[in-house]
Amino acid sequence: MMKRIITVGTDTSYAGALRDGDPVSQRGTTNRRPTQADVGRLAGVSSGVVSAVVNNRMDGSVRVGREAEARVRAAIAKLGYVPNMAARQLAGGRNDVIGVFTYSPIFPTAAEDFYYPMLQGIEEAAEHAGQNLLLFTGGPVSPEGTRMIYRDGVNSLQLADGSILLGRDSDSEEVRRLSADGYPFVYIGRHTEEHGDVSYVTANYAEATTAAVTRAVGLGHRQVAMIATDLWHPAMADRAEGFHAARAALGLDTAPVYSVPSTDPVDDLVASVIDQGVTCVFVADCLVARAAVAVATARGLRVPEDFSVVSLSDYPGGTDPELNRVTSVLTPTLDLGRVSVSLLVELLTADAREPVSRVVACGFRDGETLARVAA
Amino acid sequence: MMKRIITVGTDTSYAGALRDGDPVSQRGTTNRRPTQADVGRLAGVSSGVVSAVVNNRMDGSVRVGREAEARVRAAIAKLGYVPNMAARQLAGGRNDVIGVFTYSPIFPTAAEDFYYPMLQGIEEAAEHAGQNLLLFTGGPVSPEGTRMIYRDGVNSLQLADGSILLGRDSDSEEVRRLSADGYPFVYIGRHTEEHGDVSYVTANYAEATTAAVTRAVGLGHRQVAMIATDLWHPAMADRAEGFHAARAALGLDTAPVYSVPSTDPVDDLVASVIDQGVTCVFVADCLVARAAVAVATARGLRVPEDFSVVSLSDYPGGTDPELNRVTSVLTPTLDLGRVSVSLLVELLTADAREPVSRVVACGFRDGETLARVAA
Repeated sequence: MMKRIITVGTDTSYAGALRDGDPVSQRGTTNRRPTQADVGRLAGVSSGVVSAVVNNRMDGSVRVGREAEARVRAAIAKLGYVPNMAARQLAGGRNDVIGVFTYSPIFPTAAEDFYYPMLQGIEEAAEHAGQNLLLFTGGPVSPEGTRMIYRDGVNSLQLADGSILLGRDSDSEEVRRLSADGYPFVYIGRHTEEHGDVSYVTANYAEATTAAVTRAVGLGHRQVAMIATDLWHPAMADRAEGFHAARAALGLDTAPVYSVPSTDPVDDLVASVIDQGVTCVFVADCLVARAAVAVATARGLRVPEDFSVVSLSDYPGGTDPELNRVTSVLTPTLDLGRVSVSLLVELLTADAREPVSRVVACGFRDGETLARVAA
Repeated sequence: MMKRIITVGTDTSYAGALRDGDPVSQRGTTNRRPTQADVGRLAGVSSGVVSAVVNNRMDGSVRVGREAEARVRAAIAKLGYVPNMAARQLAGGRNDVIGVFTYSPIFPTAAEDFYYPMLQGIEEAAEHAGQNLLLFTGGPVSPEGTRMIYRDGVNSLQLADGSILLGRDSDSEEVRRLSADGYPFVYIGRHTEEHGDVSYVTANYAEATTAAVTRAVGLGHRQVAMIATDLWHPAMADRAEGFHAARAALGLDTAPVYSVPSTDPVDDLVASVIDQGVTCVFVADCLVARAAVAVATARGLRVPEDFSVVSLSDYPGGTDPELNRVTSVLTPTLDLGRVSVSLLVELLTADAREPVSRVVACGFRDGETLARVAA
């Protein structure tokens, strides 16, 4: 077992220093670590001055001259003083730690096609901004298996200077409380004012949906419909809003929006819209798109020659080639991650913490399920 | 702007509590947070007792009765007291934070095929163990662009209870210092004693290489060779050792191991081993394997009918189908990540911190580049 490496000075005025040859029974525990008081004593300054130097707050309430700073730094080197990061945070400093919290019971990597690129964007941007990332994989979990931010009244995100929250099924009460507590955070996903002062990053789902419908109408489709799932969710509500806007702007007679629970099969509904003469259906995600293609094919229709299907989200996609062939609005997951970091860093360094939001543009995959309407 | 939600009691003996209606100028700053002293005053106990309850150290030096604990918890709830996690860590508690540090200049996600599954394994295991993950994406970087653990004598990993270190090109001096400082960490990759008391997780590269050679010899190959790169690295040295062991065990006459810098082209060397009558070459990674296949093909040999190529690592693979066709020893990246977490948790909870290591079994991909030797 190696001995702790400590530089020991010959300055006899400092009595607290360790002498070479002191017995070492337990690594790092018997050897008392030099404290800020020790550094101050050796440098001939107060602990407050040492703290100001260590935490780079030399132009704050404690003013430190250049000469005193040099003495403190020399004493730090001589004693091998190591500031404690937890102490630095307590002293009002920051540790350059950004937290990532998800309400999903499983950490993002399990949902590879959606959360993973988001996390990747967060990691890239954090690295670029010189921020460490604290993934709250170990937080409290409710009896229902969802993660919680608060346990016994303790905000488990506190160890991070600020956090990025993601996951569809957020706990409004917790988000409100976080906001009321003044904890800096950015939500990925649109939030309404009822959640308190929430800063968020979202995608332009409404505009992207309008653009997708406009494209289909440009290909001759006049009978379109939308099958939405979980319409209570802002991201889906935005898509429905964009669909309605397209109908109004393009002067379509009928363009119904159906809302179904995400757990329900859509086969009968797809069959019904086909019977109504719809030639292009816009659906919530690629799984619904696959189901719609199957229904149309079973009825003897060719996709996309006779019937077009557009997914308003590329989720889930990933490695399934069939799902990746669906013409689809692309969620800008990587960018959402990146922008959430820059927004949070902005919040952390700003004087005032007024809630802010950013909107990121969606992409579009020109897949194989949308074509010019049959003549 | 919402007001902080604080439950205010009617207990007049507690003067420090906030009254509803107090002016709020800055969220979370003007409102003094209740302290442990406030809680102690209300509960009629010392701050030490409050601290013991908050940090779950009730059977330590401070003994707390059930009745006192109940009074403290009631006071905590009444005042809305929120323990500070940094303070908790300073008090000797743990925050259930495991750090992940890589010496690679870019964070793992950029090297998707190798580090990403490792990180995925780490995340899964951390979640399972109830540990948060601190990714050191923001640490100090040397002028050469590699990450550093220490800056100005400060161990930047301190904020985590312990850390997992990964990346090929570790700084031996830093690892030694970390070890000497008694900071708990697990290295992914074999480490020799010169690094100090290092706990590590590694794969059984030697055994896996022996097994691969044995398989080839079982297919009739008697003239084999190994092309190693970066033989200074323990993971490659282990493979060479396994290769030599196979030669000895199988009684092969010649089975040379060539060592080339990973940046050099291998074309001439591959041509030379073919000229020497070698029928199966074992190479460091899939890129070298691809080059070897190209050389053999250019010389009119069919792979694997006339010439076999086995990669001793599946790196890089990922989405390139050609690389994924190479018969290859598989690095158990996911398992290495998982096991590193469980080993670190073991270290963190153990009384003694003797260095320990774990060996994880490699896999084997029965690809398309190894076949029975031509008659």
